[in-house]
Amino acid sequence: MHTANTLNMTMLCDFYELTMGNGYFQAGFQDRITYFDVFFRDVPDKGGFAICAGLEQLIDYIENLHFGAEDIRYLRQCGLFAEPFLDFLENFRFTGDIWAVPEGTPVFPREPILTVRAPAIQAQLIETYVLLTLNHQSLIATKANRIVRAAQGRTVLEFGSRRAQGADAAVTGARAACIGGCKGTACTLADQLYGVPAGGTMAHAWVQMFDSQYEAFKTYCQLYPNNATLLVDTYNTLKSGVPDAIRAFNDVLRPMGITRCGIRLDSGDIAYLTREARKMLDNAGWTGCQISASNSLDEYIIQDLIRQGAKIDLFGVGERLITARSEPVFGGVYKLTAVEDASGAILPKIKVSENVGKITDPHFKKVYRIFDRATGKAEADYLTVWDETVDETKPLELFDPQATWKRKTYTDFTVRPLQVPVFRGGTLVYDRPSLPEIQRYCQEQIETLWDEVKRFENPHTYYVDLSQKLWDIKQGLLRKNH
Amino acid sequence: MHTANTLNMTMLCDFYELTMGNGYFQAGFQDRITYFDVFFRDVPDKGGFAICAGLEQLIDYIENLHFGAEDIRYLRQCGLFAEPFLDFLENFRFTGDIWAVPEGTPVFPREPILTVRAPAIQAQLIETYVLLTLNHQSLIATKANRIVRAAQGRTVLEFGSRRAQGADAAVTGARAACIGGCKGTACTLADQLYGVPAGGTMAHAWVQMFDSQYEAFKTYCQLYPNNATLLVDTYNTLKSGVPDAIRAFNDVLRPMGITRCGIRLDSGDIAYLTREARKMLDNAGWTGCQISASNSLDEYIIQDLIRQGAKIDLFGVGERLITARSEPVFGGVYKLTAVEDASGAILPKIKVSENVGKITDPHFKKVYRIFDRATGKAEADYLTVWDETVDETKPLELFDPQATWKRKTYTDFTVRPLQVPVFRGGTLVYDRPSLPEIQRYCQEQIETLWDEVKRFENPHTYYVDLSQKLWDIKQGLLRKNH
Repeated sequence: MHTANTLNMTMLCDFYELTMGNGYFQAGFQDRITYFDVFFRDVPDKGGFAICAGLEQLIDYIENLHFGAEDIRYLRQCGLFAEPFLDFLENFRFTGDIWAVPEGTPVFPREPILTVRAPAIQAQLIETYVLLTLNHQSLIATKANRIVRAAQGRTVLEFGSRRAQGADAAVTGARAACIGGCKGTACTLADQLYGVPAGGTMAHAWVQMFDSQYEAFKTYCQLYPNNATLLVDTYNTLKSGVPDAIRAFNDVLRPMGITRCGIRLDSGDIAYLTREARKMLDNAGWTGCQISASNSLDEYIIQDLIRQGAKIDLFGVGERLITARSEPVFGGVYKLTAVEDASGAILPKIKVSENVGKITDPHFKKVYRIFDRATGKAEADYLTVWDETVDETKPLELFDPQATWKRKTYTDFTVRPLQVPVFRGGTLVYDRPSLPEIQRYCQEQIETLWDEVKRFENPHTYYVDLSQKLWDIKQGLLRKNH
Repeated sequence: MHTANTLNMTMLCDFYELTMGNGYFQAGFQDRITYFDVFFRDVPDKGGFAICAGLEQLIDYIENLHFGAEDIRYLRQCGLFAEPFLDFLENFRFTGDIWAVPEGTPVFPREPILTVRAPAIQAQLIETYVLLTLNHQSLIATKANRIVRAAQGRTVLEFGSRRAQGADAAVTGARAACIGGCKGTACTLADQLYGVPAGGTMAHAWVQMFDSQYEAFKTYCQLYPNNATLLVDTYNTLKSGVPDAIRAFNDVLRPMGITRCGIRLDSGDIAYLTREARKMLDNAGWTGCQISASNSLDEYIIQDLIRQGAKIDLFGVGERLITARSEPVFGGVYKLTAVEDASGAILPKIKVSENVGKITDPHFKKVYRIFDRATGKAEADYLTVWDETVDETKPLELFDPQATWKRKTYTDFTVRPLQVPVFRGGTLVYDRPSLPEIQRYCQEQIETLWDEVKRFENPHTYYVDLSQKLWDIKQGLLRKNH
């Protein structure tokens, strides 16, 4: 058992979730059923869509949710919590419902990617961890997918553990990168735990450890003839690195009949050096030698390198992927949308804010994705009240919730609810897909998006519209609360 | 036992550390003693110094270092590792020496903040985790300290768990923020594990759960009369939030004789709203009511708010602190500096790079900090070969290693070695300070820096110079290797 995901993370909550929990308990609200949505407001890097991820770790968390004896002891010594509440926490577990958008789905601002229905104390307590895991992995999956798209079919590997923001960021970050399309990782534990294929050959220290670079390369080829990727920039890439590599390939691999091998560059002018290295390798008959490059890469630098004719087969991407350096925050929030009264009626709730962008969409909702039947392309997402359905046989008129005169009618379409049931009454009802399945699903779903949504600069804003019924309820609450 | 820090993180290594390890083993290098330095090249956010942190988690890691049966099984099925090597890993533990700069010390580019002396396989295997933990916590401690300095004595609290890059980033991030000067955190687990004081009162959901805002506030004051900080921006801060808070304070706290309480704002124009709220509170006799503000704060926004006369007693800083959003990477590297030959002689090693900034300082070194005796201020750091000492009774001439004609002679100075022994022959020899001790030490050490080093814009570049002997060795190796 190695990482956070198999541990009890119950105490990884914001302290206010406990003070509120104690308050709900004392005020007699502990059985009041509440509804919370997770949604985000902006796509990082001004992108057209995000990739949602992190559900698997969220499931682990919910299943392990409980307070141990030492947790209760800690809480008691805080001096803030009533004894009956502490007793209640001893048998605390999650008994509610959770619906979520499956991992790997492209998602858009303002739509609920996860919905919780649970007694107030439970729903409130899980806020921090739910957000933390969805925010983190969605951030990295989204960033990885941008980098993978920039590489235009070339392999992208995740190399960032040493610059990750903590152990969990390294390991679950590698997992999220894989969802976004990375083909492998340098992180051994991510392979062992999640099956993200791990690989790697040598650091500069290997080369420095030997009396000569050639000796270092030759020894490596002898040890790993089927996996010989040599780091050629320890001293001078073109003057000695590539020539020594070719010599080692010739001396060790050629007699064995091996034609597949590799070199890696981690510094210098990658565009120029890889073009020259490619020529040298080809001239020496090593056309099967792959060239890997690393060194502070991201989607923009990769685009540039390709444009400059760099000869790179594999990109190793480190710190700018594992931290999503250009925008390292995924701003998912967790907001109350409804409560049930004693009769079980669902009463919608809204949060009105002086920042208009912070006003929430109220109510227990459903999210539908509308696909054009002819092209299979995703056209819009459609938020409705929970009891609304969409009839594919009838025209569907959507309107912009900010500019209601902008309307569009869909006639030949299919519709799919985006959220699936994950927990029902505290029991897991979701069949978890494997990581390769999630990666493949992600790729397929991205293919349903128009290119205009996928471009990096000024992408088309995908429609996320409200049903008339939902819009009316929101307007009513806004008028009432202002 | 709750987080990564108490677990075996041995498999959180880059895969190349294992392929190299197997290679060293097969090549007969497993007992060869190597020296590695951790250093960084640039201070994040173009700051004048960084705060080093993460040593405590590194110690936990080293003490737990071992391969379990399932780790060996995993490695065996990779099909790359020799059986004698896998046997060797079964009894693997760290037997080397580690010296480190204590947590909370201001540190500067290019100086070794940690030095490892160990057999090659061991020294190589720990690379990823050593970097990961020092990079992450130094990043957050450095950022937190910037934010704390911007707040000019006002309290700064860490609020970012939900936007942290994974569980570990939330918990050890809160710890690092505390080292940098934060007075508390919202993260319960950071308090339970590390004693970072946790606090928090209510979210918007608390206010929405009640039939009226006043009811929500009154109930909260009754439950927590000594800890009543009310969130006043759910509907309208000045029209209803602050008035309802004053009414609840008047109705509940005043009869109890309580004068200390608080309000919190999380949206809107914080400068304007806090000035107005302050007037309303003071006019109502609640001069002891503290005002907290959150909402995407960082050191620049805090400086601006203070300049605009905002009336804020506590800043709650979230995503921009816990991810170090403006520059989320601390670029510490781990480089071979020397090896011992069979006779125990230390042979310096260098890495020559086509990027001049990536050339390393060779050899097993010492780092001294030079303080002016009269002012107590830190004047320069001085890197020497391991066997050099500095005599405080004689003038010391330092020169810029990039521009050797720039020289300065110190006459009235004291000197302190920056690194302390942490492990000797695999045994912990370091007496770990408590978190409050580290926080206090950090504050004291920052006071030894000139203000010119501490300013945000164009800080003075602190000197990190090489001894003549070290400089000569480096030049010799450069000539030899180029």
